[in-house]
Amino acid sequence: DDCILGTDKKPGKDPRLKKRRIIMEKMNSLAYYNGRITAIEDMMIPANDRGFYFGDGIYEVAMVFNRKIFALEDHLDRMAGSAALVRIELPAPKEEIGRLLSELTEKVDSPHQFLYWQITRGTSPRNHLFPDVKAVASNLYVYSKPWKGVEMSDEYRLLSVEDTRFLHCNIKTLNLLPNVMAAQKAREAGCSEAIFVRDGYVTEGSHSNISIIRGGVFITHPLDNLILPGTERKHMLAYCEKLGIPVREQAFTLEEMAEADEIIVSSTSHPSMRAMELDGKAVGMKNPEIVQKLREEYMREVGM
Amino acid sequence: DDCILGTDKKPGKDPRLKKRRIIMEKMNSLAYYNGRITAIEDMMIPANDRGFYFGDGIYEVAMVFNRKIFALEDHLDRMAGSAALVRIELPAPKEEIGRLLSELTEKVDSPHQFLYWQITRGTSPRNHLFPDVKAVASNLYVYSKPWKGVEMSDEYRLLSVEDTRFLHCNIKTLNLLPNVMAAQKAREAGCSEAIFVRDGYVTEGSHSNISIIRGGVFITHPLDNLILPGTERKHMLAYCEKLGIPVREQAFTLEEMAEADEIIVSSTSHPSMRAMELDGKAVGMKNPEIVQKLREEYMREVGM
Repeated sequence: DDCILGTDKKPGKDPRLKKRRIIMEKMNSLAYYNGRITAIEDMMIPANDRGFYFGDGIYEVAMVFNRKIFALEDHLDRMAGSAALVRIELPAPKEEIGRLLSELTEKVDSPHQFLYWQITRGTSPRNHLFPDVKAVASNLYVYSKPWKGVEMSDEYRLLSVEDTRFLHCNIKTLNLLPNVMAAQKAREAGCSEAIFVRDGYVTEGSHSNISIIRGGVFITHPLDNLILPGTERKHMLAYCEKLGIPVREQAFTLEEMAEADEIIVSSTSHPSMRAMELDGKAVGMKNPEIVQKLREEYMREVGM
Repeated sequence: DDCILGTDKKPGKDPRLKKRRIIMEKMNSLAYYNGRITAIEDMMIPANDRGFYFGDGIYEVAMVFNRKIFALEDHLDRMAGSAALVRIELPAPKEEIGRLLSELTEKVDSPHQFLYWQITRGTSPRNHLFPDVKAVASNLYVYSKPWKGVEMSDEYRLLSVEDTRFLHCNIKTLNLLPNVMAAQKAREAGCSEAIFVRDGYVTEGSHSNISIIRGGVFITHPLDNLILPGTERKHMLAYCEKLGIPVREQAFTLEEMAEADEIIVSSTSHPSMRAMELDGKAVGMKNPEIVQKLREEYMREVGM
C-alpha cells in the first residue's frame, strides 16, 4: 500500500520515484511535482500548468513540528473542500495525499518544517474552459523547508486596507494578487500584516485570520465567503471552549477592533501574533492572561 | 540595436539566443521564457515563478494577421498600464518588448497567429512580499500559435452569472479563476460566453467586453475598475465616431441588454460576436446594418 502519486497524466504509481527514493539522502529542503523530486529552486513545471495562466488551483500550508505534520486532517479536509468548490478533482484520495506529505517531510533534514502544497487543474494549452478530466489529471506540487519552530510575537503592527478581493475568500485559491499587494503595502508602512476592511467591518488579514478579545469574550468573524476558514482559528475556538472562554462569531468594525482588549492575528505559520499597533496607534495588550492561556493550549497541542 | 531580452535575472542581451536563432527553422508554434525558446508544450518554468504561487503577473493577447501584430501599440500601452497598477517593473522598455514579439511571431510558420504574453513579478522563494527588485527581475513568457484568421459569429448564446470578482477588473492580471469558472458554467449551459452582472448591471464577459445597440446608439460600460479596457472596445468606439454612430459609455442592466436591438461581444481574438440568445431567450439581431458597418471597419483596419 504505497502512497506515491502519479506523474504527468494520471493518478497512480510512479515507478521512477521508487528508484529515486532508494538513492536519495536527506535533503535540506525539497520540492515535489507529480512524482519528481528536486531542490525547491531547481523545480521546473510546464508553462501549460493552469496555475501559471489562471491561478487555477488551490493550496495549503501546514507546519511540521518534531517530524509530525500538525493538524494534518484539518488541512486535508480544507484542501478537499477548496478543490470541490472550484471543481478540481484531487489527484489521489486525500488520505493518500496525506501519506505522501508525511513521506516527503521525512526526507527533509529538519524536525520543524514549513510544508506547502498546491493542486492545479492540470496541464493543457491555455483555454479558460476546463480541460477534459479524462485526459488531463490535476497537478500536485509540494515543497517543504526547515522552520525555526513555533513563532509568536507581542509586537505586531497592523495596517488597515480596503478589502477589494473577490467574494470567494473562503476558498484557498492561488488568486492571491490582492493579498500580495496588501502585504507589501503593510510592510512599506512598517507593519507586519494588512487588515482587510469591507464596508467598515474587519474581515481578515492578508494571510491570517483576525480575532479580538473584549470583556473576556473571544470575538471572530463568522465563517462565510468573506474569510478563509483558518485552521488556527478553528483550533483557537476549541481552546476557548476547553478554557471556558465565551466565544462570539460575529463581524466587528475597525473601530471596535481599535478599542478591543486584545487583537490576535493567527495563521498556520504564525499561530498567535498579538497586535500592539493599528494604523499607527497603540491598541490591545490589555488581557495578557487570556492570550497566555490560549498560547499554552497551542503549545500543548503541538507538543512543544 | 537588437531587441533580445535577457535571461534569468536581469534585462539585457542574451548571447545564447543569438546562437539559437541561427540554427532555428520556422516553427509550428513557439514559446519564449526569459530568452529560452521551445515548442509551447515543452516550455518549463521555475515553480518559484510568482505567477505559479500567486497569479502575481499581468498578460496580453494580440492577433497576428498577415504577419503583422494588430494593434500592437494598444496592447503594449495596456501592458505597461497593468504592470504599473500592480507595481511590476517591465523586463525591458515596452518598445523593446514590442520588437521581441514581432521577431518571435516571424519565427512561426503561419501568417495569422494568436500571440500571448505575460509578465510575472519574478522568481524567488514563496513570500507574499515583493522580492528585492534589484536582485529579482520580472519574467517574460510569450507564446504564439497559428490562428485561422478573423473569427466572427452571428450565433452567440450568452449566460448571465453574478459578478463576484475583485474590484480590479481594469487590470489584466493572472487572477482569472472566477473567469474560468464562469466560462465553464456557460459552456455547460450550451453557451458561448458568460456575462457578469453586478448589482443588476452588466459589466463584461468572462473574456470579452459587452456592448449593445439600441435605437441606433452604441452603448457600452464606462471604463472603471469593473471592466477591462478592451482593445477591441476602444477600436469599435473609433469606428462609431468615424461612421457617425452615436456612442454612450454607460452601464446597462441585464433587462436593457435583453431588449437591445443588438448585443455585441468583443475581444481581441473574437472581435465581433453577435448574440442571438441570452439565458435561453432570443435577443438582439434587429440592426444587422450597424453590425455590418462596424465589421467592415474592422476588416479594413486589419487589412483582410
